[in-house]
Amino acid sequence: MMFFEGSEKKIEVITSTEFGSLRALGKDFWTKVVAHACAEILDTISNEHCDAYLLSESSLFVWDDRFLMLTCGTTTLAEAFLYFCDHVSDKNILFASYQRKNEYLSHLQKSSFQEDIDRISERLDGTAYRLGNLDSHHNYIFHLNKPYQPEQGDTTSELLMYHIKGEGADYLRSEGQTLEGVRKLLCLDQILPGFEIRDWLFEPFGYSLNAIKGDRYATFHITPQEESSYVSFETNLELEDSGILEIMLDALKPGSWDLIGFNALAPLLENERFTCLAESKIALPCGYDMTFNHYQHGEHKVIAAERLTGKAA
Amino acid sequence: MMFFEGSEKKIEVITSTEFGSLRALGKDFWTKVVAHACAEILDTISNEHCDAYLLSESSLFVWDDRFLMLTCGTTTLAEAFLYFCDHVSDKNILFASYQRKNEYLSHLQKSSFQEDIDRISERLDGTAYRLGNLDSHHNYIFHLNKPYQPEQGDTTSELLMYHIKGEGADYLRSEGQTLEGVRKLLCLDQILPGFEIRDWLFEPFGYSLNAIKGDRYATFHITPQEESSYVSFETNLELEDSGILEIMLDALKPGSWDLIGFNALAPLLENERFTCLAESKIALPCGYDMTFNHYQHGEHKVIAAERLTGKAA
Repeated sequence: MMFFEGSEKKIEVITSTEFGSLRALGKDFWTKVVAHACAEILDTISNEHCDAYLLSESSLFVWDDRFLMLTCGTTTLAEAFLYFCDHVSDKNILFASYQRKNEYLSHLQKSSFQEDIDRISERLDGTAYRLGNLDSHHNYIFHLNKPYQPEQGDTTSELLMYHIKGEGADYLRSEGQTLEGVRKLLCLDQILPGFEIRDWLFEPFGYSLNAIKGDRYATFHITPQEESSYVSFETNLELEDSGILEIMLDALKPGSWDLIGFNALAPLLENERFTCLAESKIALPCGYDMTFNHYQHGEHKVIAAERLTGKAA
Repeated sequence: MMFFEGSEKKIEVITSTEFGSLRALGKDFWTKVVAHACAEILDTISNEHCDAYLLSESSLFVWDDRFLMLTCGTTTLAEAFLYFCDHVSDKNILFASYQRKNEYLSHLQKSSFQEDIDRISERLDGTAYRLGNLDSHHNYIFHLNKPYQPEQGDTTSELLMYHIKGEGADYLRSEGQTLEGVRKLLCLDQILPGFEIRDWLFEPFGYSLNAIKGDRYATFHITPQEESSYVSFETNLELEDSGILEIMLDALKPGSWDLIGFNALAPLLENERFTCLAESKIALPCGYDMTFNHYQHGEHKVIAAERLTGKAA
């Protein structure tokens, strides 16, 4: 079984108006940032607010005053962050965060979260937290120790789905799938109406999508492989009452999932089908209320033993 | 926060009568086996059936025809297994298994389960399984590819408790605790009546116990540190209708726990207080029905964010 860690690392940085535009740093600069994470730019879309780069391992979104970069696999996102810091002085960084999501096989990563933040902390004074238990799903975050006041509507939601099942998952694992087929499966017309979209199918499996509309963005990254399946959806759309979460859970039928919010009000309530196993929240002094909720579907209980090596019983 | 991985690796081996007695190999031999795991013998008790060695990291029990060794921390139990194999030829090994329990921080281990079994497989033909999900509690097992027929009463139960809470946990984390105090907390009179006992308090925290009575054994290992607390209880006693599991859960109030059985009939039924999140079972061709059940207590849901570095909010 080929293992691929779909789970992402993420950086988000907000800069001061004095610094000027991050977009104006140009594609060459951002190509180098991405290269420091051991990824590359596959495709780009732009509108009046944002340049959205689809990467070989996930995504980069650059606005004038902020950027966010997600990378999966065994990429070295902390290196990309440090390279960025080489070119932008501390005083122009108003906000910075570095996250690592729940990993299937953390021992296969090139560095641990602790090692990453040890290096980042040599350059930026910050504080790190873990939300969720060490021995279950959890999310690590490091943030800059500077007070920051997010604007109204500055909200982020991350829906991280594990163990996808059913027809949608089967399709994503099948040969001959098409971009059109995946878009339909994800109900893009319904959840991202009017968005400009760029998406990509990877070999042998995997799908990434960037979507932008004004200053709003959304991104999907799908690692469909059985036993380590992972789908992330992230957006700055307000999810509350949007029905988007319910559509995603219905399309991909994850066995478990995490919902992470930054100033986002979109808690999923438990019901007879799924349970919230863990909830954790913290008002980060950098201006965001962060919430972490870990859910499990009731049907995700009886698990076949997984043969790793040797002959079948 | 000092991190100590309480979770154990385990080997169990059964040898043929032709080989003679494993106990007769002598303490010097077993001291060397233990040293290959980077552990040492602290104390010994013996009866007519068994030599029970209390180790600096867990336990070794040796009977005439079998032994089992548990080691925690960052010990290298696979090395001990390979050293044993240097001295006992394949044809005299009727059964062998190598297990790794759910680890809090697997990336801090000196080797992964896959690396361990890659090495062991160079010497012994075997099959490996994972029971439980990769991204939640799970148990790895490798077993020798030889048919084996366990005797009646050859049963093993492992109760692995995480996130212990309440008065018992507080006592185990307190200064000035005594062997007598821990024995009382564990209700040893009630659960192991008539057993010969040897136990040990570690600095600054931690407790280990070996107990034998005839050919029956039991062992406790406690790593009480907050955030990575772990208590293992293992025995070849029949647990069904013994009340032992209930007494342990009541004394230590774990937030989550795993129950692993080999030809053991002791499922804990879910109730209004706790839920079984995962169950997995397999009839191993080496003669044991293995079961893995992962439970979570209802109160183990709201989790404070854990600050890892930096200043408090």
